[in-house]
Amino acid sequence: MRIGIDVMGGDHAPETVVQGVMQAYGELAKGSRMVLFGDKEKIATAMAQAGFDAAQVDIAHATQAIEMGDHPAKAFQQKPDSSIAVGFHALAKKEIDGFASAGSTGAMLVGAMYTVKSVEGVVRPCIPTFIPQANGKLALLVDAGLNADCKPEMLCQFGMLGAIYAKNVLGIENPRVALLSNGQEEEKGNLLTLAAHALMKNSRNFNFVGNIEGNKIYFGTIADVIVCDGFVGNIVLKQAEAMYALAHEQGVKNEFFDRFNYELYGGTPVIGVNSTVVIGHGHSSIQAVKVMILQTERVIKAQLAEKVKIALNNNAHA
Amino acid sequence: MRIGIDVMGGDHAPETVVQGVMQAYGELAKGSRMVLFGDKEKIATAMAQAGFDAAQVDIAHATQAIEMGDHPAKAFQQKPDSSIAVGFHALAKKEIDGFASAGSTGAMLVGAMYTVKSVEGVVRPCIPTFIPQANGKLALLVDAGLNADCKPEMLCQFGMLGAIYAKNVLGIENPRVALLSNGQEEEKGNLLTLAAHALMKNSRNFNFVGNIEGNKIYFGTIADVIVCDGFVGNIVLKQAEAMYALAHEQGVKNEFFDRFNYELYGGTPVIGVNSTVVIGHGHSSIQAVKVMILQTERVIKAQLAEKVKIALNNNAHA
Repeated sequence: MRIGIDVMGGDHAPETVVQGVMQAYGELAKGSRMVLFGDKEKIATAMAQAGFDAAQVDIAHATQAIEMGDHPAKAFQQKPDSSIAVGFHALAKKEIDGFASAGSTGAMLVGAMYTVKSVEGVVRPCIPTFIPQANGKLALLVDAGLNADCKPEMLCQFGMLGAIYAKNVLGIENPRVALLSNGQEEEKGNLLTLAAHALMKNSRNFNFVGNIEGNKIYFGTIADVIVCDGFVGNIVLKQAEAMYALAHEQGVKNEFFDRFNYELYGGTPVIGVNSTVVIGHGHSSIQAVKVMILQTERVIKAQLAEKVKIALNNNAHA
Repeated sequence: MRIGIDVMGGDHAPETVVQGVMQAYGELAKGSRMVLFGDKEKIATAMAQAGFDAAQVDIAHATQAIEMGDHPAKAFQQKPDSSIAVGFHALAKKEIDGFASAGSTGAMLVGAMYTVKSVEGVVRPCIPTFIPQANGKLALLVDAGLNADCKPEMLCQFGMLGAIYAKNVLGIENPRVALLSNGQEEEKGNLLTLAAHALMKNSRNFNFVGNIEGNKIYFGTIADVIVCDGFVGNIVLKQAEAMYALAHEQGVKNEFFDRFNYELYGGTPVIGVNSTVVIGHGHSSIQAVKVMILQTERVIKAQLAEKVKIALNNNAHA
């Protein structure tokens, strides 16, 4: 398998990314090879500095880089030789099996939609985030931020997409899917979640367990997959980040609160596109880049995109 | 001042409420007198058990109680001699200056809307919740749950109502009002918050400081009043509750996390109605009941309803 990595993406690129690549190198499976997209001279310099043998990876030269200040949607087209654009074209031609970047989320999404595109039948792709559970497990929250405004059928489909991810990547059999709401009872919700609840309740595509309240999402007792729109998902995710920051700032030493550290998860795959695309945190550290790469390998291995296609196809013929 | 208290409301009523009343007794100002609404025999028994002299409060007999299983909207009318209904009628007749209950939130709201009613010009009343800040202060989140579906002008008005509360009850001069969103930049948001942002930016009724992200709401650096719809507010509030529960469960001893304990705040006033109405947590402990009563005294003293009327009146003539 060939794992594409945007070396120019992220606050501390390319050095941090190259060091993350180096750390991931020893942990990837034998048949996995990394392909680094970016300025070949800068990559060579960073690799030499890090003492990493350039023969252990492939390098795909790209003369441009999409910067955080660029307009994400326009940058992808205005910079056709950027590391993100070159990476996505390689992904579309199947020269690589997955592509990961800690660069511009917007450009990554535009790239995915322009090149590999959504799986047919997917209303809108989404991204999950991992929520540590007090029972030691992980739950998924979808959508963690791609779609600020959702329709009920989108939330219902996020349930299916999240369940496919939870089963195939996290190995959870028959994942419990819940809808995040302002009350556990079926009649609690806003107009969006009330309509989504009705659709989810009748869906045969996943194991719907009803609503879940915000005070239950960290305990593992109700759900493996928690569905919400991307606006709410962003706020939940950022609030968890705040708690980690607070615990840190307050000098709280606790294993559970430590699990809120995003560096442990290293990025989120886009669910619902025709290949493996993983978006890392813009502030990614070496550790976060390493985990992003390992996570990309795991998602490629799980054949997530194929599983989504099969599910939607079965669905269409059901 | 006469503070009305529903003695039949809450999971552990009437005993817990009576004990909360007893604890509040010593801390109220000289001119403040409590009026207890409920079954006079049950109250007398609970007071005798607690060793509390019945002459220190007034008792307003009510033969019925609204139970948690009752339909909140219907219960208020179907049980005209319930402690909540009798309390609200006394409030409307100004026999008491404020009314507090740890009973059914729904019945309390219906009671408020049927009797004292919204201040003219208030689109929808709202409730704040207190958010502890790492700098030791408190911020307000409005709406914490009353209005699951909001229009942009409601969010804008919550900003004004929250600012009035922050100034007059919390004593914050020129409170900074921010809109909770999925990005700090003006162009980030969902359709609702984008439209609300435009209104808030142009409002002269409060000091709008722009968007605030979920990871910034606990640090006191950006805002004193954080505005969101009641669906999002409920999820933020419950997530904070979860963090407190997790910290507790994990044996984390930390002053800051301890401040997430709702018992410290004792209830939320309804902002935008023509009197002082305070709703306590259904699980209120003795300590929480005590704080609810002290909070009611504070809101009455601050003449919150009058301040809202004045602000809306100025607004109408502006």
